[in-house]
Amino acid sequence: MRAAATPDEIDAVVRRIGELGLTAIPLPGAERTAIGTFGVAAREHADQLESLPGVAEIVHVSRPFKLSSREVQPADTTVRIAGVPIGARSPVVVMAGPCSVETREQTVETARAVGRAGAAILRGGAYKPSTSPYHFRGLGVPGLEILAAARDASGLPVVTEVLTPADVGIVADAADCLQIGARNMQNFSLLDAVGELRCPVVLKRGMAATIEELLLSAEYILAKGNPNVILCERGIRTFERYTRNTFDINAIPLLKRLSHLPVLADPSHGTGKWYLVAAVALAAVAAGADGLMIEVHPTPDHALKDGFQSLTFENFAGFMALLPAVAAAVGRPAGLPVAARP
Amino acid sequence: MRAAATPDEIDAVVRRIGELGLTAIPLPGAERTAIGTFGVAAREHADQLESLPGVAEIVHVSRPFKLSSREVQPADTTVRIAGVPIGARSPVVVMAGPCSVETREQTVETARAVGRAGAAILRGGAYKPSTSPYHFRGLGVPGLEILAAARDASGLPVVTEVLTPADVGIVADAADCLQIGARNMQNFSLLDAVGELRCPVVLKRGMAATIEELLLSAEYILAKGNPNVILCERGIRTFERYTRNTFDINAIPLLKRLSHLPVLADPSHGTGKWYLVAAVALAAVAAGADGLMIEVHPTPDHALKDGFQSLTFENFAGFMALLPAVAAAVGRPAGLPVAARP
Amino acid sequence: MRAAATPDEIDAVVRRIGELGLTAIPLPGAERTAIGTFGVAAREHADQLESLPGVAEIVHVSRPFKLSSREVQPADTTVRIAGVPIGARSPVVVMAGPCSVETREQTVETARAVGRAGAAILRGGAYKPSTSPYHFRGLGVPGLEILAAARDASGLPVVTEVLTPADVGIVADAADCLQIGARNMQNFSLLDAVGELRCPVVLKRGMAATIEELLLSAEYILAKGNPNVILCERGIRTFERYTRNTFDINAIPLLKRLSHLPVLADPSHGTGKWYLVAAVALAAVAAGADGLMIEVHPTPDHALKDGFQSLTFENFAGFMALLPAVAAAVGRPAGLPVAARP
Amino acid sequence: MRAAATPDEIDAVVRRIGELGLTAIPLPGAERTAIGTFGVAAREHADQLESLPGVAEIVHVSRPFKLSSREVQPADTTVRIAGVPIGARSPVVVMAGPCSVETREQTVETARAVGRAGAAILRGGAYKPSTSPYHFRGLGVPGLEILAAARDASGLPVVTEVLTPADVGIVADAADCLQIGARNMQNFSLLDAVGELRCPVVLKRGMAATIEELLLSAEYILAKGNPNVILCERGIRTFERYTRNTFDINAIPLLKRLSHLPVLADPSHGTGKWYLVAAVALAAVAAGADGLMIEVHPTPDHALKDGFQSLTFENFAGFMALLPAVAAAVGRPAGLPVAARP
Repeated sequence: MRAAATPDEIDAVVRRIGELGLTAIPLPGAERTAIGTFGVAAREHADQLESLPGVAEIVHVSRPFKLSSREVQPADTTVRIAGVPIGARSPVVVMAGPCSVETREQTVETARAVGRAGAAILRGGAYKPSTSPYHFRGLGVPGLEILAAARDASGLPVVTEVLTPADVGIVADAADCLQIGARNMQNFSLLDAVGELRCPVVLKRGMAATIEELLLSAEYILAKGNPNVILCERGIRTFERYTRNTFDINAIPLLKRLSHLPVLADPSHGTGKWYLVAAVALAAVAAGADGLMIEVHPTPDHALKDGFQSLTFENFAGFMALLPAVAAAVGRPAGLPVAARP
Repeated sequence: MRAAATPDEIDAVVRRIGELGLTAIPLPGAERTAIGTFGVAAREHADQLESLPGVAEIVHVSRPFKLSSREVQPADTTVRIAGVPIGARSPVVVMAGPCSVETREQTVETARAVGRAGAAILRGGAYKPSTSPYHFRGLGVPGLEILAAARDASGLPVVTEVLTPADVGIVADAADCLQIGARNMQNFSLLDAVGELRCPVVLKRGMAATIEELLLSAEYILAKGNPNVILCERGIRTFERYTRNTFDINAIPLLKRLSHLPVLADPSHGTGKWYLVAAVALAAVAAGADGLMIEVHPTPDHALKDGFQSLTFENFAGFMALLPAVAAAVGRPAGLPVAARP
Repeated sequence: MRAAATPDEIDAVVRRIGELGLTAIPLPGAERTAIGTFGVAAREHADQLESLPGVAEIVHVSRPFKLSSREVQPADTTVRIAGVPIGARSPVVVMAGPCSVETREQTVETARAVGRAGAAILRGGAYKPSTSPYHFRGLGVPGLEILAAARDASGLPVVTEVLTPADVGIVADAADCLQIGARNMQNFSLLDAVGELRCPVVLKRGMAATIEELLLSAEYILAKGNPNVILCERGIRTFERYTRNTFDINAIPLLKRLSHLPVLADPSHGTGKWYLVAAVALAAVAAGADGLMIEVHPTPDHALKDGFQSLTFENFAGFMALLPAVAAAVGRPAGLPVAARP
Repeated sequence: MRAAATPDEIDAVVRRIGELGLTAIPLPGAERTAIGTFGVAAREHADQLESLPGVAEIVHVSRPFKLSSREVQPADTTVRIAGVPIGARSPVVVMAGPCSVETREQTVETARAVGRAGAAILRGGAYKPSTSPYHFRGLGVPGLEILAAARDASGLPVVTEVLTPADVGIVADAADCLQIGARNMQNFSLLDAVGELRCPVVLKRGMAATIEELLLSAEYILAKGNPNVILCERGIRTFERYTRNTFDINAIPLLKRLSHLPVLADPSHGTGKWYLVAAVALAAVAAGADGLMIEVHPTPDHALKDGFQSLTFENFAGFMALLPAVAAAVGRPAGLPVAARP
């Protein structure tokens, strides 16, 4: 639509598209509103639609993803987690914390330590996917309560994983941002459920998913009306055996080129080895990542899950001291973001 | 336990294991009952347990999967779908039908055609996972009703996919066997939910899952108490671009060696090309598969999903004519199974 | 060219194509001669060439491989190794023997044992690629002498690997068929060198090579004038850790569809586990393989290389007893081929 | 050996190891000499050897690679190409130039342009591996002459690929550094041949090679006596289809941790898309790469090979302007290296 298009003109175009048997979703942008239109016959009706009042131009999108596409929305999207902005025009945001919430002490202590070192957001899992039914699957509701306590103690907003549609409500009430894990990237019922909210969602790439599939999964959430999607590269499965996964660094600039959504890097899962985390985290920032997700544990060798990839407080603080120079070198706004909470 | 162990002796062992803080699951077999025991300290208490009345021996299982393991249960398991037996001692079972239920005519016509050609079970999707939110996602409840009509018309029991825990009840009421698709192999909430039933479950290998992970996902269902799990190899993702997936033929004899559960092959997804389906299906049977899952459509070029990998009625019948000789060559019991329904 | 085209007409077409700045290679077939033509401008001149005497039709080949393509040569090629025919119209050929030639006794004993069990060709390595410079790299020339002795003792022709262009002459003098290993599939100097001979060549697929790349490597040998190329699927590298490689069963029918060349299966490298070899070998035959390459060792646990994937004499004989029924079930000519040597 | 060990003492230890039937290779370091010892019985004789004069300690190496291992040689190795130092203690070295040498003008022009922008070394291929026999395979000897001319014109030393043992002499005479390409990483005859020289060698990781295999291939060269090996990560093959390869960023810090050898990154092949090259190059430097190898072409859309991944002169200069800040941010010595030639 033209920059000067009125709400009535926008409504009229949406209505007309509906009459043609197609789906239309308005995409309000900083300067003007785009209208995403989907359906096999969409191209045939382009001429008719172009003549409606307020229509600026018809853009045929060449990729199967639409709402997440930079073709449809050229300007970078900023998503806010409890006031902390994440996106291309904001400082690099660091989300840090334990893989799993184990105890109140462990979680609060970690939240304070990562906050002191400059992390803006606390991560930690109350519901944990586990390959084996005999391993730790998270504390559940008591874990959510511990995260709330850690938020109060540290002032950091909380991101935590949700595993199934039935839990979306309770997790969204407790957290500032939801996380969809790699194994659930194509759990479409779950994507639909978080799409019904307006809560920010970190969507992790599946371990054998292509970039196109990641963007199509984001599309599920966006198409339900939730615009607050943050993409996260966390490594793919390859034949390499010295590392747990292979962090796909190409994905960072590729996602920034194809999509307007913010892009995070998770070097903890992306490497599976604590001694590679800092180097790969700096690499991700140099490649253009808008934020990082890093596992930190007071005593990694006692962690119930994934201790081998967690940083100690000391190693995390050491890494955080290196980050500003690399971020500045690639033109990021100065200063690490701070939480908006008092 | 010894073959002559009494129910009281079995109960006493289970109780004693519980007192030690471990989990015990009795596994009744053809000749005797095994008791699966899990927990970090399980090995320390082996001596104590070995002295209890009725205990034959303590076997330490070396793989992380237990209930699905041939170490724990050496004899082949036979799972029955509405009376049709599936397992190493039964004829090769063919499940065939459309990828998606589209219309009553298409589904009933296909059910009758595959039944005439020798298929024992009808497959068809009412709930379809779709990579894109803009593509066909299945008819839902009306699709289940069409499947019921096709069962009545053809006499074939029905296997159909369930996507989310909330739908497990309604799908299990309508179908004779549930299917967990590749994308949901690690949807642990869904595995838990189908584990609560006694309905047979076809569990498909995820497209980047290892054999160990597949067996651990089966373990989720078994650990909840549902013993009727059928494993299914359906191809893994590789760099090859002439095929949709790479069917892992090694997985067939490997799963038969590691596990007592029945093993299916899905050459339709495993190749993604209709002209490779028959050759790979015969290969899977020669390698020891207990059954096949094959997509058939009256007019594959008009299918709403996956037409390129579906066989026509004629191609399917041609394939079925080749199957008995290959099955006999590897020692399968003669005669294709027929449905138990009148 | 038409079936009735004269040599002069064929020469005239080849000459005319040369004048157009393109390369032409005549491909004599059972019924008529095709002329492969390569070069960017080939399509522009199609009309001119079609009007020449003896030309039947111009076929535009859609794949990047030409001489190996079934579009160019529709009839199946039969390659003969010392008189043993290999191809779609011949019985399944089994090549068996030790991974490495270690001693005269081991090699002769194995040759006799596999011959008694029905193998038609002896395989064994005198020059071995080794991932580590500190491991066994083969006996070299003395190994070739041992292979000659084993051929004399057993009557079986010999296939053995060549690693570098400088050795092609000496290995071709000693062997009945050369093998290009997976690591050398894209050693283009070596492909050129074996292309200069008329000796049969088994070309193994590289462990991360696509089907298209395998056919393009075959194309190197064919384009130099050696038509006796046998393709071999030997497994690709994936993330699966219970097996050494993933045997790509799809490749068997796909190669038979795309190419007229004979196709072998190597289930020893394709699985890396002796207990999977027989099942995958039968699967490959059921899928249409023209032959098998199987590692056999008198005492696999003492083998210098790859013992874990070698069959004992007893296991090999057991497998060979199962093979005829499966081969017959998919319509292979009856009777295992016997060596042409007296 | 102790830092104060005399040459006679070192010789005595080497001689004694030889008497034990083991291989010993002295590894002179900055502070002291290590002696690599190989053979199955090496551990049994540790006690005897430890008592010899000048011996400081016996280190049992846990990885299968030895000479390339940091366990054997803890200090970073610096390799010099015509005087340009490459290694952890030197500035980041940029090698740039065309994929293939096409014409004198193209090559000289590119050499001057990349030199002006700060590249220290010219890269360019005279012998090119090509997947298809019908594509450009390089100019050969005339290409080497053009590279010599470009070196004279620009003052930049030259690195170029060698494909086969027979060409090693002629290429080494013409170039300052040899390159072993990804397809030849396990061409062991070629590794042996370059191991006989003292010329620096860039060894690229194969596209499905593990890190361990890369280091074992380096071991071939080192074991022949050539210490001047530079490792190069250039992307691995995965299922992702938007990029040509997946650059394995994990490999950079992992190789630096496991080995003392210098590590290069090739983001041109690692991405296959010119618009991703700069971001991934900066990422590699942030992760610790000692140098970069980047394809530059005056008119990428007219390149005979790989134009789509080549930078224009302008894009390359733009990238070079960003490099110093990122290098400085991770503590690299200031200043880009300049060629030692006048």
